[in-house]
Amino acid sequence: MRTVLVIGIGAGDPDMITLQAVRALNRVDVIMVLDKGKESRQLVEFREEICRRHLRERPYRIVEIPDPRRPRRADGLSLTEYEAAVRDWHAKRAKALEATLLEDVPEDGCAAFLVIGDPSLYDSTIRVVHNILDRGNVEFDWEVIPGITSLQALTARHRVPLNQIGEQVVITTGRRLTADPSPPEGTTAVMLDDALACQAIDDPGVRIYWGANIGTPEEVLRSGPLTEVIEEIVAARAELRERTGWVLDTYLLRRE
Amino acid sequence: MRTVLVIGIGAGDPDMITLQAVRALNRVDVIMVLDKGKESRQLVEFREEICRRHLRERPYRIVEIPDPRRPRRADGLSLTEYEAAVRDWHAKRAKALEATLLEDVPEDGCAAFLVIGDPSLYDSTIRVVHNILDRGNVEFDWEVIPGITSLQALTARHRVPLNQIGEQVVITTGRRLTADPSPPEGTTAVMLDDALACQAIDDPGVRIYWGANIGTPEEVLRSGPLTEVIEEIVAARAELRERTGWVLDTYLLRRE
Repeated sequence: MRTVLVIGIGAGDPDMITLQAVRALNRVDVIMVLDKGKESRQLVEFREEICRRHLRERPYRIVEIPDPRRPRRADGLSLTEYEAAVRDWHAKRAKALEATLLEDVPEDGCAAFLVIGDPSLYDSTIRVVHNILDRGNVEFDWEVIPGITSLQALTARHRVPLNQIGEQVVITTGRRLTADPSPPEGTTAVMLDDALACQAIDDPGVRIYWGANIGTPEEVLRSGPLTEVIEEIVAARAELRERTGWVLDTYLLRRE
Repeated sequence: MRTVLVIGIGAGDPDMITLQAVRALNRVDVIMVLDKGKESRQLVEFREEICRRHLRERPYRIVEIPDPRRPRRADGLSLTEYEAAVRDWHAKRAKALEATLLEDVPEDGCAAFLVIGDPSLYDSTIRVVHNILDRGNVEFDWEVIPGITSLQALTARHRVPLNQIGEQVVITTGRRLTADPSPPEGTTAVMLDDALACQAIDDPGVRIYWGANIGTPEEVLRSGPLTEVIEEIVAARAELRERTGWVLDTYLLRRE
C-alpha cells in the first residue's frame, strides 16, 4: 500500500519544523510539487532548503506536476461561481496527482506534499488528497503532520499573545475584511491579504501587529495604532517587494 | 544580561516540537516551573520527558515556584471583577518569578518557561514576562518560540482543514460558547471547555470534530453530526478521565 504524507514545514525559518515532520520527511520516496508557475522563487528555494537540510537518510525524487490555472475572484465570478470554479480546479489537480502517484510512486512507496505553514490553515492540499481518494482509482494510507503557521511566527516575533484574556480570535482573509472592514471584538488575524484591506479601517482605537517574510533574513515587523502606522506599513511592504521580489505577510488587529 | 526564553513545546507527542525549540532548550540554565498544585501529573511528566529527550547538551536545573491561586469565574465574579482578579494574579506571579530570576539565574544565564502548545494561544506566560519587565527590577533579553497547538494536532489527526474554503475561523472558549451557544458562520474552534458547552447546541446541521489527549497513547478522536455523536463524546471523555486521570480536549464545530 502506498503512503501519502502531507507535511507542514513551517514558515520562513527552515528550523521552524517539528521533529515529527523531519522524521516524516525521511520516509519519503517522492516529493510531489504542484508547479504553480509564478510561485515565487523564494518559496521553491525554501522547500529545497528544507529537503537539503533535513531529508538526509535516503534518496528522494522531486516530481513537478503542472498545476491547472487557479480561478480568481477578480475573474468577475459571484461567490457561488467562484466556489464551483475552485472545486473544479481541485478536481483537475486531483486527476493530475493521481496519475503521478500511479506512475511515479512504487506500490509500497511513500509520497509527500510539503506545505509551507500548516496544512490545516488556508491550504488546499488536504482537500486535494480527499479528492484523489474520492476518485477511487488509487488507494493509499495518509497522514497529516502539522507545522508552525506564519500567524504563530508573527505573534512570537512580536512577543504578544494571539488572544486577549478570555477573548475570541477570528482568523479571516483579506477578501472578507474588504467586504466588511469592521473588526469584531477580540483579535482579528488576517491572512491572504495582498492589498492590506485594513487600510479601510479608520478607528484610532485599533492596534495592528504586522509582519512580512517572517523568519527569513528579510523579515520586517511593525506595530502600533493602525491609523498612525498604516502608511509606514504600506511603504515597507512595497519596499520589501521591490527589493526581494516577494512578500508573505500577515497581521493582527485589536483594540487594547 | 540574562535571557528568558518562552518555549512552545507542542501538544501530546514529545516529537511535536520544532528544531528551533530544541536549539533554544539547549541554551537553558534554569527551567522555571510554576507549581500549579493540581496540574495533572501527566503534564508535569510531559515537560520532564521533553527535557530528558531533547535537552542533552548541557546541565540544567528545574526551579519550581509556588503559584498563587488562580481566580475562577465560578467564584461569582462579574466579567470586570474577574479580569481585575486575573491581572492581580499575574502581578503576584510576576513578583515570585522576579525573585527566582534574581536569586537562581546567573547574571549572564538563560532561564526558560516551557509552555505546552503555543505560548500565543490561551496561555499567560507572555503577559507574565511583560509584567516582570514592567516592574523594572530585573533586566533581560527575551524571545518567544512558537509551538504546535492542540488545535493543530486535532485537525492533523482528523485530516481536515481548520477553515472551509475562503471562510473564517473563530477560536473561542467554553465559557464564551456557554454564554452564546450559536456558532457563527465558518468554523468555530473551542478551547478551555471542561463542560463540553456544545451540548447546548441543538442544530442537526452542525458537525463536530473532537479529540482528547491527542498525540499521547491514550488519544481519543470522534467526529460526526453534533447531535448524533455528542452523547458518545460525553461518555468517551468521562471514561478517559476515569481511566487516565486527565483530559485535555478541544473541538471544531461547523456546518458542512
